[in-house]
Amino acid sequence: MEIQIGMNVLEKNDLEAQENARIFQENQVFVLNMMSSPGSGKTTVLENTITALKDEFSIAIIEGDVYTDRDAERIRQLAVPVVQINTHGGCHLDAKMIRDVLPEFDLKAIDFLVIENVGNLVCPAEFRLGENERVAVLSVPEGDDKPIKYPVLFRESGVALINKIDLLPFFDFNMPRVTQEIKGINPDIELFPISCTTKENFTLWLDWLRKNIRNNRG
Amino acid sequence: MEIQIGMNVLEKNDLEAQENARIFQENQVFVLNMMSSPGSGKTTVLENTITALKDEFSIAIIEGDVYTDRDAERIRQLAVPVVQINTHGGCHLDAKMIRDVLPEFDLKAIDFLVIENVGNLVCPAEFRLGENERVAVLSVPEGDDKPIKYPVLFRESGVALINKIDLLPFFDFNMPRVTQEIKGINPDIELFPISCTTKENFTLWLDWLRKNIRNNRG
Repeated sequence: MEIQIGMNVLEKNDLEAQENARIFQENQVFVLNMMSSPGSGKTTVLENTITALKDEFSIAIIEGDVYTDRDAERIRQLAVPVVQINTHGGCHLDAKMIRDVLPEFDLKAIDFLVIENVGNLVCPAEFRLGENERVAVLSVPEGDDKPIKYPVLFRESGVALINKIDLLPFFDFNMPRVTQEIKGINPDIELFPISCTTKENFTLWLDWLRKNIRNNRG
Repeated sequence: MEIQIGMNVLEKNDLEAQENARIFQENQVFVLNMMSSPGSGKTTVLENTITALKDEFSIAIIEGDVYTDRDAERIRQLAVPVVQINTHGGCHLDAKMIRDVLPEFDLKAIDFLVIENVGNLVCPAEFRLGENERVAVLSVPEGDDKPIKYPVLFRESGVALINKIDLLPFFDFNMPRVTQEIKGINPDIELFPISCTTKENFTLWLDWLRKNIRNNRG
């Protein structure tokens, strides 16, 4: 019976997500859903991405948090439109929450929308938001066993960012093994090991974004 | 209606948890429920705790993971009884899952049982397991904004371990502020900043455990 309830919630969410996807497509907005554990550096990746791309594209952000608007405040400093969603205890964003805030954006004027999900490696991966692509962020201090332990997020994502690689000397993190394990879970995933501190490989991620945002505008 | 479903699940779980608590009390087992984000070092804290205390107390472990038994394999090396619970996608342990594995232990012979919950800062905090005390683990690399962003876990816990303090020189982590913010959420919480690498302050945590395990045996 619990599975039954779960299925209904997910099916209902999928329908809402399809409608979001239709709205995004109609307005030619390329939409990412960024997911990770708390503290992987999602907001810092976003800050660096916005700074690098905001002269090329019109960018907007939706910030998901359980409580607080600390991340939205950080993004607001960069002078891009940002809307905060607080789940008040909820462990993930769902498609309806996204729909409810879309009227706050001028979607026709936006090329690229990033949704930063609630920090959680488990639940957000199950809930489609209508995004073009899901991005999993894993940071070096979290440990190289996390993809095997939390495979759903990596299976459902089109891109994996391995963040904070400048910290590799200080941690027992086996990059070849984690790469192999992520590819084992999802052979088609694009994998970028990056650092927001040294900017190593950051242009690989930016170039992937440029290509996809441009393709989406047709 | 969604709130209604949520309440029923939590109320049902609370009843199961009360029954677990009765069983633990009857057998004089002191039970901890350890919760944190993935990668905070819960399993390493446990390994060090078991090694330090296993000649003084009879210890057993329940490992909660979404998939895999990697953590249970690590604990098994220390020759204490360990049972793995896989939630198969579920984002937290609940009281019924704990009850179902209790027959695998000789509870009369156990002084101290630690339940390592699924790595997740949001959901596990809502589900009582019948434990004597909840322990929140936060590690330095996760960032000092996490207690404010995920307050429920810290409000519901009797102990907070701030782990990996040997990494403080490499991170922008404001220890006085995070201490103040955790105490603001929960003035009664016991707070131990520890390192499993340097063992700094680890005896404070061990002494707290010794006192509580002994008190529980009466």
